[in-house]
Amino acid sequence: VSIKLLEKSEFEFIENIRRRYNLSKIGDDCAVLPKDSKTDLVITTDLLVEDIDFRLNWTTPEFLGHKSLAVSLSDVAAMGAKPIWAMLSVGVPLQIWKTDFVEKFYKGWFALAKKFNVELVGGDVSKTPDKIVIDSIAAGEVKRGKAVLRSGAKAGDLIFLTGETGGAAAGLKLLEKGEKYKNSRYKKLLACQLKPNPQTETGMFLGSRNLATAMIDLSDGLSSDLAHICQESKIGAAIYADRIPFRKNLKSITKSETEKIDYALNGGEDYELLFMVKPKIFFRCENEFKKRRFSYIGEATANAGIIKLISNEKSSILQPKGFRHF
Amino acid sequence: VSIKLLEKSEFEFIENIRRRYNLSKIGDDCAVLPKDSKTDLVITTDLLVEDIDFRLNWTTPEFLGHKSLAVSLSDVAAMGAKPIWAMLSVGVPLQIWKTDFVEKFYKGWFALAKKFNVELVGGDVSKTPDKIVIDSIAAGEVKRGKAVLRSGAKAGDLIFLTGETGGAAAGLKLLEKGEKYKNSRYKKLLACQLKPNPQTETGMFLGSRNLATAMIDLSDGLSSDLAHICQESKIGAAIYADRIPFRKNLKSITKSETEKIDYALNGGEDYELLFMVKPKIFFRCENEFKKRRFSYIGEATANAGIIKLISNEKSSILQPKGFRHF
Repeated sequence: VSIKLLEKSEFEFIENIRRRYNLSKIGDDCAVLPKDSKTDLVITTDLLVEDIDFRLNWTTPEFLGHKSLAVSLSDVAAMGAKPIWAMLSVGVPLQIWKTDFVEKFYKGWFALAKKFNVELVGGDVSKTPDKIVIDSIAAGEVKRGKAVLRSGAKAGDLIFLTGETGGAAAGLKLLEKGEKYKNSRYKKLLACQLKPNPQTETGMFLGSRNLATAMIDLSDGLSSDLAHICQESKIGAAIYADRIPFRKNLKSITKSETEKIDYALNGGEDYELLFMVKPKIFFRCENEFKKRRFSYIGEATANAGIIKLISNEKSSILQPKGFRHF
Repeated sequence: VSIKLLEKSEFEFIENIRRRYNLSKIGDDCAVLPKDSKTDLVITTDLLVEDIDFRLNWTTPEFLGHKSLAVSLSDVAAMGAKPIWAMLSVGVPLQIWKTDFVEKFYKGWFALAKKFNVELVGGDVSKTPDKIVIDSIAAGEVKRGKAVLRSGAKAGDLIFLTGETGGAAAGLKLLEKGEKYKNSRYKKLLACQLKPNPQTETGMFLGSRNLATAMIDLSDGLSSDLAHICQESKIGAAIYADRIPFRKNLKSITKSETEKIDYALNGGEDYELLFMVKPKIFFRCENEFKKRRFSYIGEATANAGIIKLISNEKSSILQPKGFRHF
């Protein structure tokens, strides 16, 4: 038991604020707000702080600009929505302002924005005494009432994951050990951490076709993010260890099977989508799911709040051990 | 000439980004986004950084929560819009997290939000290595096409100001000199700086009745904010020094007339509204303007980019000397 567990986490704090002030729009990847009779707006904000969420000697200004937008686009994707516009607040110390850092940062941001046709509509530029701080805001649109929430899953739903998991955590580990992106033989793993790709197209596919009952993006880590869905949907889950789509090459840089599973389950920042699907819906689009390489990893259960990890026919309780700030 | 003038300001940087990436929604107090056939959404974001925008030993957590929302509501008011919802990202170091700071901060935020029926719909909570950082996002609604921009003023329009100016700068000066809010005889001046009131009702009045051709809130300072309107509207302005509504008691704490005028013109953070009105519109609602204590301070001129300050029949060029980060 870590000493951290003795302090209130940011999740507990937010839950507390949400209840006290009766905030119905809080608790998902994005807030869902009515736009017009046919459309809802979804919107999210992500704060990125130097030496907490990134380190300047690990990344590049362009990667950081890319990632700042990517993490928010990932939240929009997790609602099944199409991203439309964004805002960006940037605070930098004077010595950074004097360099071409901010120019390059925006270059990275705009390169990703262009890919998804996202318009920058506002922002703020401020001085800080010391560290860089970024607040990224992104908004998207989805058919009225069709945003995919965390709360819609039912026992019996099948659990799927896009892409592979553990890469961002492995990349982080390499960076912590002193690996530099330039000239690295692990560029792809490092890019998982430094330049993640939001699953925008997949989110829109799942959302526009009403395929998912619940969805979240993998930001904190699979164990924690699955726990968020379970909490909001008042369900439990059973996950098969041998069905987890580990990131390629993950084994080559991990010392043990335990470490590999830890990266994949608790590592966070993979920005893949975790979603639930009704069995009858899955059978209807099995081929499409295969083509898109979605991984079936388990089922939602009626055992509310309990997540079981099943490996070699043994079953253990999976505790949410993803990233927390406090 | 200050050394600062040799470096690019954040205004120049933003203007540069705006042109390079052809960003049509940038350059006003809020972005204006189509909502439905009858309504536009306006949205703004403001970054507040410890030891740049506020100091913990000058303010209280409740005041800071209030001000974080107030500065964004002020931007919404400057569009003539009604505030509807907000988001709030907060980053704090561990030692602050362990105290009741964040609880009290939210308490101050929600007290103001309740006053204007603003709903908190999202946000982020993060750890920082050292300083507190806040990003405040607020959105409002206005009739389609009726948002009051900075760009709508024409030569001949009359220039008005709500409330009084210079109070926030005087409050800041007192704080810098070591004055403490508790037990101070200058509580009202200090409150101008620590707990500003957004002109939400006035903004809605001017917006809903189409009275203003251009509007901005006094955040950087009257000289700079008027220059922003002049730039966007491609006009000049003439301001009468003896018509500037100095904050009561400003004289008692300033050493000279020059210092007093400097606070009022360049001080910033008064969060009053500066707006332009066609003469024929003004004559139609002169009584209402009087009742609301709007101050007529000058006229828009065809002399694009030139702001003249007229005092005792002498005229001088007013340089924008409001707050800038860089």
